[in-house]
Amino acid sequence: MNIAVGQSGGPTCAINASLAGVFAGAVESGKIDKVYGSVYGIEGILKENLVVLNDYIKDAKDLELVKQTPSTILNSCRFKLPTAEADITVYQKIHEVFKKYDIGAFFYIGGNDSMDTTNKISAYFNSIGSDIKVIGVPKTIDNDLMCTDHTPGFGSAAKFVATVLKEVVRDCSVYDVKSVTIVEIMGRDTGWLTASSALLQQAGEKAPQLIYLPEIEFDLEKCLSDIQELFKTENTVVIAISEGVEVGADVTSGVTDNFGHKYLAGVGKFLENTIRQRLGCKVRSIELNTLQRCGSHIASKTDIDEAFDIGKKAVETALSGMTGRVMIFERVSDKPYKIEIKSADASKIANNIKYFPKEWITEDKNGIKPEAYDYLLPLIQGERSIIFENGLPVHFKIK
Amino acid sequence: MNIAVGQSGGPTCAINASLAGVFAGAVESGKIDKVYGSVYGIEGILKENLVVLNDYIKDAKDLELVKQTPSTILNSCRFKLPTAEADITVYQKIHEVFKKYDIGAFFYIGGNDSMDTTNKISAYFNSIGSDIKVIGVPKTIDNDLMCTDHTPGFGSAAKFVATVLKEVVRDCSVYDVKSVTIVEIMGRDTGWLTASSALLQQAGEKAPQLIYLPEIEFDLEKCLSDIQELFKTENTVVIAISEGVEVGADVTSGVTDNFGHKYLAGVGKFLENTIRQRLGCKVRSIELNTLQRCGSHIASKTDIDEAFDIGKKAVETALSGMTGRVMIFERVSDKPYKIEIKSADASKIANNIKYFPKEWITEDKNGIKPEAYDYLLPLIQGERSIIFENGLPVHFKIK
Repeated sequence: MNIAVGQSGGPTCAINASLAGVFAGAVESGKIDKVYGSVYGIEGILKENLVVLNDYIKDAKDLELVKQTPSTILNSCRFKLPTAEADITVYQKIHEVFKKYDIGAFFYIGGNDSMDTTNKISAYFNSIGSDIKVIGVPKTIDNDLMCTDHTPGFGSAAKFVATVLKEVVRDCSVYDVKSVTIVEIMGRDTGWLTASSALLQQAGEKAPQLIYLPEIEFDLEKCLSDIQELFKTENTVVIAISEGVEVGADVTSGVTDNFGHKYLAGVGKFLENTIRQRLGCKVRSIELNTLQRCGSHIASKTDIDEAFDIGKKAVETALSGMTGRVMIFERVSDKPYKIEIKSADASKIANNIKYFPKEWITEDKNGIKPEAYDYLLPLIQGERSIIFENGLPVHFKIK
Repeated sequence: MNIAVGQSGGPTCAINASLAGVFAGAVESGKIDKVYGSVYGIEGILKENLVVLNDYIKDAKDLELVKQTPSTILNSCRFKLPTAEADITVYQKIHEVFKKYDIGAFFYIGGNDSMDTTNKISAYFNSIGSDIKVIGVPKTIDNDLMCTDHTPGFGSAAKFVATVLKEVVRDCSVYDVKSVTIVEIMGRDTGWLTASSALLQQAGEKAPQLIYLPEIEFDLEKCLSDIQELFKTENTVVIAISEGVEVGADVTSGVTDNFGHKYLAGVGKFLENTIRQRLGCKVRSIELNTLQRCGSHIASKTDIDEAFDIGKKAVETALSGMTGRVMIFERVSDKPYKIEIKSADASKIANNIKYFPKEWITEDKNGIKPEAYDYLLPLIQGERSIIFENGLPVHFKIK
């Protein structure tokens, strides 16, 4: 029997680690001949654009390189699978390809939309009595998937955000003038990643003094008066704000993707211009942009290790006979930090959003309560030994 | 005898390493009692805002922490020293403070403007027959100082730029669609830092396929046709462009600083919008912003070691009786990479700019020739063991 694995959705630092986990799990099981990689997500299955990963990942060093490579070595897609009612032929084609290549289990590593795909395909296979297993492996820097304590990819993004923010705080605090620095962080609907900027405070920093998440209504006048209040005792005010915060102006580019998501840009720029006009102080805005989802050189060791483990466990789960499941983390304890890897019904995860808890947001609606630290801190722990060549991190490529 | 040290200009990863070098050099010489730190650059001298660094840097671990802290632990200023003809009292005040605190030598770590300050103060001291030594220690991520092979701070910024650009290339290459990613890199007048993005090509990447420096006139139509040409064989085009490239539109914010420098912003955004409108493809622009000058977590070990050594050597130089000098690197050979630390007359460095050599730019004016690699590669070599606490790099602070 063979298996297939695909990667989908927006890049993170941990998707390849989960792929490495699936690969290692398959090899170690002794029950799987070939691990097919589906190039460009589920589209690779439909177009039979498959590679035999065993031909590329030859030894332990290759596996290490896969783990330290950001984004997706098998590329990605944003293909929206139609419902079986709307177009059964797509499902038939997937089944036909799996049969042709003797693929007994398919592992789909992705975000919310990919878990929806997992759910639909497994439901179809059940409906036709096929015994091919379909298992979802979650990933998203947004950390907004239901049923799981957190998502692979989030910890590394959070570590990147907190690390560079700490450096930016050093950078922007050097002049003896009043200044505001705005850091715009990814997160359309949820503020998990922006909230991780609060970890600077447990590391002894005053900044970021103001943190705004999409979960809370933004009050521009309150923000301006908060800055003025802070200026009474401090020179440097740092603001962390989610790209998805509605600041009261149209800052979107107007472009939408296949899932109807709006491409957001400009919350930081809008705030920069407004603060400069209204308060007349020095202002700079920094958009962390895609750097925050692909900063593997400063990945969280905890995150990458867990992403690998959840991939391995996905193979075990399929081999135990389960299907239509999404792998999840269950937190056993914060101190010491301990998780268990389990699985949940894919239908429960797909198309739902887990918001940042409102009880962890301060009464003033502009900060994060220390209660959140116990949750966030374990996820950014540890640094990996990255393999460098000629001064740059080495990335694994399939060509 | 005591000495004083100050830091000035825009932050880099290496300014504190040079300060650590000055401190270590003073301690090791056995000839210096106290090392005063001048808070907020030369303004700290004028306002007698001084700290005794010996009270803060207590042991080898403290020194390590200073070296791994980005920006300036003594803060900074952009104070423009008047000429002695215009206002002699400023110079008299500096001399008076040095006498009061028994400061026999002053070390000023900074960029072009700080070397101008070094030059002016030492000339004044000479003119009044004072034997107080004044030595400049260069730093700038721009690498645009004359007389020196390169500047401390540049290698770490170049390593950050090349590392994150390599990750961005992984990130932006995953979808099966034509796309352009523009990365805007610091450099008002010179393209050294943007040129370092070409190091990806020696690491086996095709990207960035187009590189634009301020040294070369930018041709928008040529850029657009180059992209279309590249699209014939590639999905993903990555552009590295200096903030200082004149793209044919006013993209400055209109704000200028005390030295008359314009704050630039928006070259990447301008190009993003233009490419989207004209070519209709997917486009994203990323501004590396201040992250590229304070990314100490991925600092070049070569850079930090050299910055430390040049600080130490500055103390030796002053103790040998020299003044009005700026410390410089002289490259002895590329392979193996070997430098010597010497000094040059401050007047030769101040107010001059070293441009990126035109002979290292391709005939097409949109790329860097491999000849530049031998120069650039040694500067990004090596990674430091960073001290982390609770998942984040530790920074040294004077409070």
